[in-house]
Amino acid sequence: MDEFDFIETYLKPLAGPEALGFLDDAALYKPAAGYDLVLSSDMLVESVHFPKGQYGENTAQKALRVNLSDLAAKGAEPKGYLLSIAWPKNLTNETLKLAGSDFAEGLRKVQEEFSLTLFGGDTVRTDGPMVVNLTVIGIVPAGEMVTRSGAKPGDEIWVTGTIGDAYLGLQSVLQSDGFEASTDEWVQAYHRPTPRLKFAKPLRRFATSSIDISDGLLSDAGHIARASSCGLQIDIYKVPLSTASSGWVGCDLERLKTLVTAGDDYELLFTACPKDSSRLVDYAEKAGLQLTKIGICERGKGVTPLGSNGQRIEFSETGYNHFLK
Amino acid sequence: MDEFDFIETYLKPLAGPEALGFLDDAALYKPAAGYDLVLSSDMLVESVHFPKGQYGENTAQKALRVNLSDLAAKGAEPKGYLLSIAWPKNLTNETLKLAGSDFAEGLRKVQEEFSLTLFGGDTVRTDGPMVVNLTVIGIVPAGEMVTRSGAKPGDEIWVTGTIGDAYLGLQSVLQSDGFEASTDEWVQAYHRPTPRLKFAKPLRRFATSSIDISDGLLSDAGHIARASSCGLQIDIYKVPLSTASSGWVGCDLERLKTLVTAGDDYELLFTACPKDSSRLVDYAEKAGLQLTKIGICERGKGVTPLGSNGQRIEFSETGYNHFLK
Repeated sequence: MDEFDFIETYLKPLAGPEALGFLDDAALYKPAAGYDLVLSSDMLVESVHFPKGQYGENTAQKALRVNLSDLAAKGAEPKGYLLSIAWPKNLTNETLKLAGSDFAEGLRKVQEEFSLTLFGGDTVRTDGPMVVNLTVIGIVPAGEMVTRSGAKPGDEIWVTGTIGDAYLGLQSVLQSDGFEASTDEWVQAYHRPTPRLKFAKPLRRFATSSIDISDGLLSDAGHIARASSCGLQIDIYKVPLSTASSGWVGCDLERLKTLVTAGDDYELLFTACPKDSSRLVDYAEKAGLQLTKIGICERGKGVTPLGSNGQRIEFSETGYNHFLK
Repeated sequence: MDEFDFIETYLKPLAGPEALGFLDDAALYKPAAGYDLVLSSDMLVESVHFPKGQYGENTAQKALRVNLSDLAAKGAEPKGYLLSIAWPKNLTNETLKLAGSDFAEGLRKVQEEFSLTLFGGDTVRTDGPMVVNLTVIGIVPAGEMVTRSGAKPGDEIWVTGTIGDAYLGLQSVLQSDGFEASTDEWVQAYHRPTPRLKFAKPLRRFATSSIDISDGLLSDAGHIARASSCGLQIDIYKVPLSTASSGWVGCDLERLKTLVTAGDDYELLFTACPKDSSRLVDYAEKAGLQLTKIGICERGKGVTPLGSNGQRIEFSETGYNHFLK
């Protein structure tokens, strides 16, 4: 199988009408009147963003889910995506065929779950590691995109789902550092994060700012703080954990600090005016989505993580710390 | 310099308002009413699509120009692009700084020449060769995008500019195979192809099908033949050559065959009804663009290259030949 076969056999069935049957090297998208477009690109490199040799479904699903999470954080509805893949030249035809089929199957499942189609892209070969680039296209009603820059002092800080499971899933997958505990829930959270697209409507209606948690809860709170020019006070003991993760943390503050800085959660972190609190909770209940208030915005800047006694907790790790300033 | 510095220092000045100051990991594009969007993605890999170690302006300019050529072939007007780069990890900070500055300078020049801005993207590191992915966004008046599939028997076949210069430019750059001849014109054609965006309006108005020549004139004619389900008869002695290229070819048919199959020209190859012939020529004259009629569409399929005596010329090279069927 070469890359043309890959496109014909595996990618064509994923294409929407916008792809024009891949005959044109370009996609034609007719935007609906009254909507803005939200566009986001992510590049993933083998051995950096996904494990060496993981050419199939896990990589495809994660790549697309993570990009859709960017749209979810903007309150957008996904429509389609362009996909570029550089396949390593040293793969045998047989390996490429299996990987290609498996990769496309991963895309298909995510497309079906979130109602979008493939618009186009490019397939090439490389002497180096596999590289995947996705550009996702979503829409929001005109003027309603949620940015990171609208948080105001007094706004409450909310987070969807639970935090830290993906990190523990990664440790399970890597079996790193004598890490013995493992649950399917963790591994699932790592391989199949759920972009919170079903919360788009309340987000557009009530959120003053929003981000999806990829770098880590505190880092991403820092992004909101900087973009909004305000401070975010976060009670880290209120950060929602799954039962399994809560069991792993126990009373160990260092473990809790690990989870709130680890990232890869793809939950939504957003701010909203206190008067909208009960309506947000109603929406979340109807959507069957866990929603937790974890702090408040304040004058000032940066993120202040608070412990159980209301005292600031210090984080020593470089790489996270600079997000707290 | 790390990739954050690269973004802050070199990419931010290239950003349009759609990029939202790179604060949001997503771009917001408000499509004008009455326009369709044309989207195209290309991935370029070091040592495959551009020479090893060529991290700067030449790669940036070519990558963006080639993508804009895809829009030109659709009759579209460019608005913006998303750019993902995987920088090799083994570059020193100093090299990365120089390359990054030079790369951004290349982008800036092309943006200014063709009036588009950077919407967003991603910057990562890789253990392998440099990888660049571009997704360009253009617009056409609703329903007016030119596809590859509208050619009809009797339509005339046109090509802009001259063919083969980029191939000779590549040989000059590579100094391959005892290739001694060289002109700045050839090298320029290879490094700085001109996307024929200024011909968008007549293309939308008159072209029944269109493609930009990247694989080679005959190969790309084959793409139109397949998409349009008709045959293309091309008089290869009518294919326009620059004076320098014509001198290189002389009376050597094999050299002419090389140029019409070599590719990388990024000229437009399109079909139009004979009745529109004089108006096309008028438009081209006003635009200062060379335009040459090189053949005619017929019933049947595939591409038939004709020699000076009206006889079919056979092409033996695999890789091109299958496009002629």
